[in-house]
Amino acid sequence: MSNVITFYDIPSKNPGQAWSPNTWKTRYSLNFKGLPYKTVWVEYPDIEALCKKIGAPPTATKADGTPFYTVPAIHDPSTNTVIADSILIADYLDKTYPDTPKLLPPGTHALQHAAINAYLPTGAPVFQFAIPLTHKLLGPGSQGYFRFHREKLFGKTMEDLTPTGPARDEEWAKVKAGFNVVDGWLQAGEGPYFLGKTPAFIDFVIGSRLYWLRQIFTEDSPEYKDIMTWNEGRWATYVEGLKQYESVLI
Amino acid sequence: MSNVITFYDIPSKNPGQAWSPNTWKTRYSLNFKGLPYKTVWVEYPDIEALCKKIGAPPTATKADGTPFYTVPAIHDPSTNTVIADSILIADYLDKTYPDTPKLLPPGTHALQHAAINAYLPTGAPVFQFAIPLTHKLLGPGSQGYFRFHREKLFGKTMEDLTPTGPARDEEWAKVKAGFNVVDGWLQAGEGPYFLGKTPAFIDFVIGSRLYWLRQIFTEDSPEYKDIMTWNEGRWATYVEGLKQYESVLI
Repeated sequence: MSNVITFYDIPSKNPGQAWSPNTWKTRYSLNFKGLPYKTVWVEYPDIEALCKKIGAPPTATKADGTPFYTVPAIHDPSTNTVIADSILIADYLDKTYPDTPKLLPPGTHALQHAAINAYLPTGAPVFQFAIPLTHKLLGPGSQGYFRFHREKLFGKTMEDLTPTGPARDEEWAKVKAGFNVVDGWLQAGEGPYFLGKTPAFIDFVIGSRLYWLRQIFTEDSPEYKDIMTWNEGRWATYVEGLKQYESVLI
Repeated sequence: MSNVITFYDIPSKNPGQAWSPNTWKTRYSLNFKGLPYKTVWVEYPDIEALCKKIGAPPTATKADGTPFYTVPAIHDPSTNTVIADSILIADYLDKTYPDTPKLLPPGTHALQHAAINAYLPTGAPVFQFAIPLTHKLLGPGSQGYFRFHREKLFGKTMEDLTPTGPARDEEWAKVKAGFNVVDGWLQAGEGPYFLGKTPAFIDFVIGSRLYWLRQIFTEDSPEYKDIMTWNEGRWATYVEGLKQYESVLI
């Protein structure tokens, strides 16, 4: 057991339910490679102290200029390495475990970095729907922190963030428009994934957002069902193919 | 000679000078593949009529809902095919001439589409500097058209578009910030190009913008020289490596 990777993730209020679109990138990565790991759950307000304790560097800078610490982070005892940031973790895992499937195959690093940059804003319209539902999914250890920071970011209360009436339809159409953009890229390729038959890191970035939406809307919601019909069912196929990488080892 | 591809490009006021960041994507593509072609020069106001005449479909839709016709376009007599839009042309050339170097190697189609989407906005800050200089480079057949449409798009006259004084420095810093973003992606890869040692279509997209800047600022200008020093001289190396694909066959 001493060589098992420790993977730091954010809990929901439901024991063992992994939900975060950020940490899922790394959980998918570990599952894809078949690397054993154990999950250590860390509530939002405790992330900074944890990262400092384990020696995980900040991954960004806050608006006030101070360092911003985030998960996913991993500790790999086999090399005594601690890393934060999902794409840096992916790169580390590719290099450290060369006999496992590649998340960033040679020649695709720069392209995947750029493609992720293009992908992220296409998903922005869903936040107004997803953030209040995410807030509801969190336990008391994270809810207050999440509310404070997200309300500051969006300039609205959790209760006012999701549009209603005709505005809801308009904003939901923007969510669909974002999926259409990504569908256009995928249609140019061999599919179903970015590089072809096998998913790569960018697919796990997208898969993580879809997994998150499945958790917060739930599979039977009209919203999630709607998404699964878009682009001739592309996202249903996409999600189905990723299910083999969705173990939650705790 | 009957099998030589016809390549439709926009002239400058100087005979034989190709300058357009859009058409260069195709000129680089043809040169990279070593395919013979001849250039037919078409002034801006004549593009729509030309495309209709040769059967090149529109590549976009105008704000008023009518079709928008653009160059680059090619006519390949060996297959009697007419295509517009540089990435569609690249894909066509890859498929029709399978023994030539690939612009969109298998497994990179979707990624290159997404990466181009990420790249284009990073270059937007240079327009305010580059558009008035482009206007000056055009001949009388295109200048009026170019002025009318660009002034409408930017909401400023050619003479007011480029910032002066301290605002100029601030805006030029944004140009640099855009290059920094792309440098970050390239740093993640093997370099110097997106896929490694050999350029691909996305590199010709970037190369076309750099070629354009070289034509309008001129190589000896402080602006172009400044760019060549950015990111530890990455762009100087990048441009140098693309020079072997810069023939202007007319």
